[in-house]
Amino acid sequence: MLRYAVVGAGAVGCFYGIRLAAAGADVQFLVRRDADAVRASGLTLTSPEGDLHLAAPRVASGWSALEPCDVLLVATKATANREVLGELAVHADRLLGPDGAVLLVQNGIGCEPAYARAVGGREVLGGLAFLCAQRRGPGVVAHLDYGALTIAAHAPGEVAAGVTARMRAIAGDLATGGTPALLDDDLVRARWRKLMWNVPFNPLSVILDASTAELMGDPATVALVARTMAEVAAVAAAEGRALPGTIVDDLLAATARMAPYDTSMKLDADAGRPLEVDVMLAEPLRRAARAGVAMPTVAALHDQLAFLDRRIATRGAPGSRSHG
Amino acid sequence: MLRYAVVGAGAVGCFYGIRLAAAGADVQFLVRRDADAVRASGLTLTSPEGDLHLAAPRVASGWSALEPCDVLLVATKATANREVLGELAVHADRLLGPDGAVLLVQNGIGCEPAYARAVGGREVLGGLAFLCAQRRGPGVVAHLDYGALTIAAHAPGEVAAGVTARMRAIAGDLATGGTPALLDDDLVRARWRKLMWNVPFNPLSVILDASTAELMGDPATVALVARTMAEVAAVAAAEGRALPGTIVDDLLAATARMAPYDTSMKLDADAGRPLEVDVMLAEPLRRAARAGVAMPTVAALHDQLAFLDRRIATRGAPGSRSHG
Repeated sequence: MLRYAVVGAGAVGCFYGIRLAAAGADVQFLVRRDADAVRASGLTLTSPEGDLHLAAPRVASGWSALEPCDVLLVATKATANREVLGELAVHADRLLGPDGAVLLVQNGIGCEPAYARAVGGREVLGGLAFLCAQRRGPGVVAHLDYGALTIAAHAPGEVAAGVTARMRAIAGDLATGGTPALLDDDLVRARWRKLMWNVPFNPLSVILDASTAELMGDPATVALVARTMAEVAAVAAAEGRALPGTIVDDLLAATARMAPYDTSMKLDADAGRPLEVDVMLAEPLRRAARAGVAMPTVAALHDQLAFLDRRIATRGAPGSRSHG
Repeated sequence: MLRYAVVGAGAVGCFYGIRLAAAGADVQFLVRRDADAVRASGLTLTSPEGDLHLAAPRVASGWSALEPCDVLLVATKATANREVLGELAVHADRLLGPDGAVLLVQNGIGCEPAYARAVGGREVLGGLAFLCAQRRGPGVVAHLDYGALTIAAHAPGEVAAGVTARMRAIAGDLATGGTPALLDDDLVRARWRKLMWNVPFNPLSVILDASTAELMGDPATVALVARTMAEVAAVAAAEGRALPGTIVDDLLAATARMAPYDTSMKLDADAGRPLEVDVMLAEPLRRAARAGVAMPTVAALHDQLAFLDRRIATRGAPGSRSHG
């Protein structure tokens, strides 16, 4: 199995890292705030698919304490990318051999090129987590639902890069740990496909303080979600990534079947964390402008969310949230 | 002076009604919930321009108790129009002579035709209140700022109807009471002009739980407001009501100079009252569709507000409102 280092040991990073470690992989966890607690109590993943506990995980409390690995699994929020890229510029050559790779498990689109620059010629993979998981305390993560990881490779010029040997190796390790991995030959198409869901539901869940079930329960918000999705699909098509014609209906139907669910951005807002406005909304809008495609609904969501993001930065976490 | 009956004795109806009565006009107030309190304690208007108290106002606690008048001043929320129109169908001929008129002091656009049908051939005027006032208790209204009433006449086919003798008479009565009245020869243009401000600021104040000052304090929401205004102006122009080319900049500049202000829709939302979604957003969207003009930003605000309006109807007034 490959050797992994997980940067960003939140719910997403811990889920995949604990699953890999429990399957026998060598996994380091970069843990800052909770390092002492994790060293004392280990890492715990509760899951309907089976709980896991790592009594003595490999914990690094800073980048300097990380040791060489094959795959640097970056699962921070995109809002932390500047910080991670700065550390990578210093530590990449020490941590990664020529065949080392970065696996960027994040929302949004357009971050892989900066990671490719930061790690020189090494392979950069994008990871798209279809996962409901929440941090419940220091070193404790609850897996609620789903869990598959789509993996695709970045290539210069954002061309489709096909399926690499490294992708297959990671997928094999994940599968050994019981986690399905889907290999996609086109990273940008995979990111657009995930944005189809994220661009409407993440902002609206914050702006309207609503679960996915509430948004799907009102015809007005369903219509708004559908128009938002159509705008995203139009820009994806303009970038040569036409998605299936039934995708809007398919995503709405799938969401209607989901259990009520707070999006990752809603969890961020409720906790007073920065919102992923840039990679999830601003970057799609920049791509729309370059392609000459209008995204007025996405622009409205962007502006509302940018306002709320700055208010969170000013006020901190909201207290009681009863919205009317 | 003319004889008035005020239907909808909230902040707006009481402000104009008390000002008229204090100036010597015969004014009846249709007061339901607070009838006993108003009979006992009168009507009070506090104002930086001078407090007024009517110790013994003419109070009717139901439509049947109203007596004939010259002007029925309807100042209910537009959400009550179905109820008011139903009462008018029964009581118009008893309350209004052939020269009687309705003055509809409401937000939105497109309600005068239904009032014209309800009162037969009688004159229907639209009133546009530029007024900050709040109900503070039974029979007590606080005037905070502004107060001018723009009056314009409805005509079949929504053509510009010019300035009528009745409009001049009402303006004279208002002026006698210290309230400026502006006569506009084109009701539909006047309504579009007011919608230029209301369509962005009323919904956004509710959706983002923000004062006008907060909305003007963030570049993202200023940009969103400006795009919303531009969509409204385009539909107004398509209806033959082109507004001045500088109106967006002028309105933004004027709003930036205003004291922080909760919109009427924000007050409605905070109190758990129905929101004026239909006359302020749905009707402009219907007109846009008829004119073949796109209003994607307004459509997004409409759908978000429709969702919140139904949630208010389900949950009632929100409690603590701390939005993140």
